[in-house]
Amino acid sequence: MKKGQRTKQQIISSVAPLFNERGYFATSMADVMRVSKQQKGTIYRYFASKDELAIAAFDYAYAKVKKRFAKAIKDKTNTVERLIAIVEIHAELLEDPFFEGGCPIFNTAVEGDDTHPELFARALRAMQEWQEMLKITLVKGIERGEMQALNPDEVSSIIISSLEGSIVMAKLYADKKHIKQMAKHLRNYILTNVAK
Amino acid sequence: MKKGQRTKQQIISSVAPLFNERGYFATSMADVMRVSKQQKGTIYRYFASKDELAIAAFDYAYAKVKKRFAKAIKDKTNTVERLIAIVEIHAELLEDPFFEGGCPIFNTAVEGDDTHPELFARALRAMQEWQEMLKITLVKGIERGEMQALNPDEVSSIIISSLEGSIVMAKLYADKKHIKQMAKHLRNYILTNVAK
Repeated sequence: MKKGQRTKQQIISSVAPLFNERGYFATSMADVMRVSKQQKGTIYRYFASKDELAIAAFDYAYAKVKKRFAKAIKDKTNTVERLIAIVEIHAELLEDPFFEGGCPIFNTAVEGDDTHPELFARALRAMQEWQEMLKITLVKGIERGEMQALNPDEVSSIIISSLEGSIVMAKLYADKKHIKQMAKHLRNYILTNVAK
Repeated sequence: MKKGQRTKQQIISSVAPLFNERGYFATSMADVMRVSKQQKGTIYRYFASKDELAIAAFDYAYAKVKKRFAKAIKDKTNTVERLIAIVEIHAELLEDPFFEGGCPIFNTAVEGDDTHPELFARALRAMQEWQEMLKITLVKGIERGEMQALNPDEVSSIIISSLEGSIVMAKLYADKKHIKQMAKHLRNYILTNVAK
């Protein structure tokens, strides 16, 4: 990696948790300078605007989540086990200080579509991708007879909503037990209401 | 109500949905002027700062939610019915254009505690109050033998997280079906896993 590329990456990785914690609007260029330890001129050499940097930060955070997910389900061939692994990776993921601010997708969703339309569109695409991954697992599970013939659209929405809600609860109460309880609850739900 | 009081109330009620939709930071004084149809001078006559107005807007939105809740559970003496009514009021509440932006408590929670500490503290207090209401219903349900001896802390966290998560999903996908599905799912959960 060339020096310029390294500096660009260093800026992105250092500001991504900040954008995630505070949101796009509440993060100022002064915050970006402080956290990245870079001069304004250097930041603007790599990013035309705060917008561009916010998008790069979102992409970075989302790629980090996806990598963890892929690792968690890699060796799970049974669809029920795979679904449970997806649920349980959340509790682990939030142990990483990087995600102290919660889920980048949901945080961006809450900011709304008129605050930063391009960022919102990215969050929507990320959510669709994530839900699709769950739906594929559910469809496969039904085909293989490992799962009950439920509606994959509904079940995936319920699992994601529940997990995401518990992440915000944990942020509000500053207590991760809300995520752990939810993971346990969903594990039980999957075993008794989704699995055959 | 005196004219001054009326103007103040009109400003609060007109800007409350905006603060809820866009968040504290993304809402500018220009937005406030546009939506309230008031001059800057008039707004500053009643509110010392955007901070003060944001807090008044939050209190207004929260009072609106509480009123609906109280009405929904008023005639429910059975604790299981009461719990289901609390769940189902969410789907109805979100039909009100006022709450297009989602739940004021959760939206504020996502903005984080360092963005606007006083607003965050208010969101936390509101959540504690709400969870307490659910916990009281659960404790009563257990005492009366209408519910299983579950942990009220956990069950209330699971119900609130699930509902709130589905509200954000609905905002992201611009589709209220996510809330309706969740209400149905929680109804079933309460009847089979919480009720005796």
